[in-house]
Amino acid sequence: MSKLLQEAVSEFSKLPGIGRRTALRLSMHLLKMDTAAVEQMMGSIARFRREIRHCELCNNLSDTPRCPICENPERDRTTICVVEQVGDLMSIENTRQYRGLYHVLGGVISPMQGVGPSDLKIDLLLEKVASGAVREVILAISTSVEGETTLFYIMNRLKAYPQVKVTTIARGIGFGDELEYVDELTITHALLNRREIE
Amino acid sequence: MSKLLQEAVSEFSKLPGIGRRTALRLSMHLLKMDTAAVEQMMGSIARFRREIRHCELCNNLSDTPRCPICENPERDRTTICVVEQVGDLMSIENTRQYRGLYHVLGGVISPMQGVGPSDLKIDLLLEKVASGAVREVILAISTSVEGETTLFYIMNRLKAYPQVKVTTIARGIGFGDELEYVDELTITHALLNRREIE
Repeated sequence: MSKLLQEAVSEFSKLPGIGRRTALRLSMHLLKMDTAAVEQMMGSIARFRREIRHCELCNNLSDTPRCPICENPERDRTTICVVEQVGDLMSIENTRQYRGLYHVLGGVISPMQGVGPSDLKIDLLLEKVASGAVREVILAISTSVEGETTLFYIMNRLKAYPQVKVTTIARGIGFGDELEYVDELTITHALLNRREIE
Repeated sequence: MSKLLQEAVSEFSKLPGIGRRTALRLSMHLLKMDTAAVEQMMGSIARFRREIRHCELCNNLSDTPRCPICENPERDRTTICVVEQVGDLMSIENTRQYRGLYHVLGGVISPMQGVGPSDLKIDLLLEKVASGAVREVILAISTSVEGETTLFYIMNRLKAYPQVKVTTIARGIGFGDELEYVDELTITHALLNRREIE
């Protein structure tokens, strides 16, 4: 097999979820594209990695030192929604229901993977809270063991600011989910947190 | 959303089988890699597109004007296996059972998609056959309507060389296939071409 092709396949295979067969298919697809288009594609992707930075206030991905959300004067500065990663922030933004600020931790506490509290942007969050403007911190962290550990760690640190309300997003049955297929823990939560019909 | 990220996502989405969600996941993965590693990855892939060429004898992908198979003195020059695309050639090579040469058509005749015989490397194949050294042409072309059209077209052109044997690869039940799930045409072929047990 051509060394150039072998190299392209091995590079594509380094991406998550892309095996050798898919890598070969992607490489073959590039041959149907103009060389200039391929150069531009690879250039844009490399440029993204080279030039992207993290917002110095909330750790969101940003093209500028501060991200558009933190810079937006219309966002409610008294509420901070804490998420694990940028993808979570995007999912919440897509709902267009949230008008506060965010704080991206960059992961969760995981002793197994050597991630401790100091590897996450928790101090940056507490600095913001200490500044006094914050009235509510919403912890939108996943319900995995690591997520819960992170949640309790942050809750403990936030106890130093009793004037700040700490909340978590509601757990329950998703719209469109069939009860039959929902796990027991979620059903238990959904039952315990049942609401009166208005 | 960051413009740099948006651009990376939109570039990844141009690849076949990669939707926006996967493109976002791939972009996020790049952030976990070193900038240098990403630059090298994108560079290698762009270089593949820029520098790869087609073997002037068989149309296989090649780093050099002639591919290693055509250049290999140990390959049997009297047999040519005709395939649609480079991936097919690789699949056959992986079996390590074939010692002849190849000829890569670069597609199949498809009036619907505007692909005629002149768009494929059929003349190059006939030149090789006309040179006199070839004794057998194996047509390893898919059994789609377009594949069959291409097969008959090439068979017709090869009638000018009655000394050349023209064969196709055997159709039948694949190893591990369950008869219950095999299509009727394949079963019919497999029955008609049954072999006596030795």
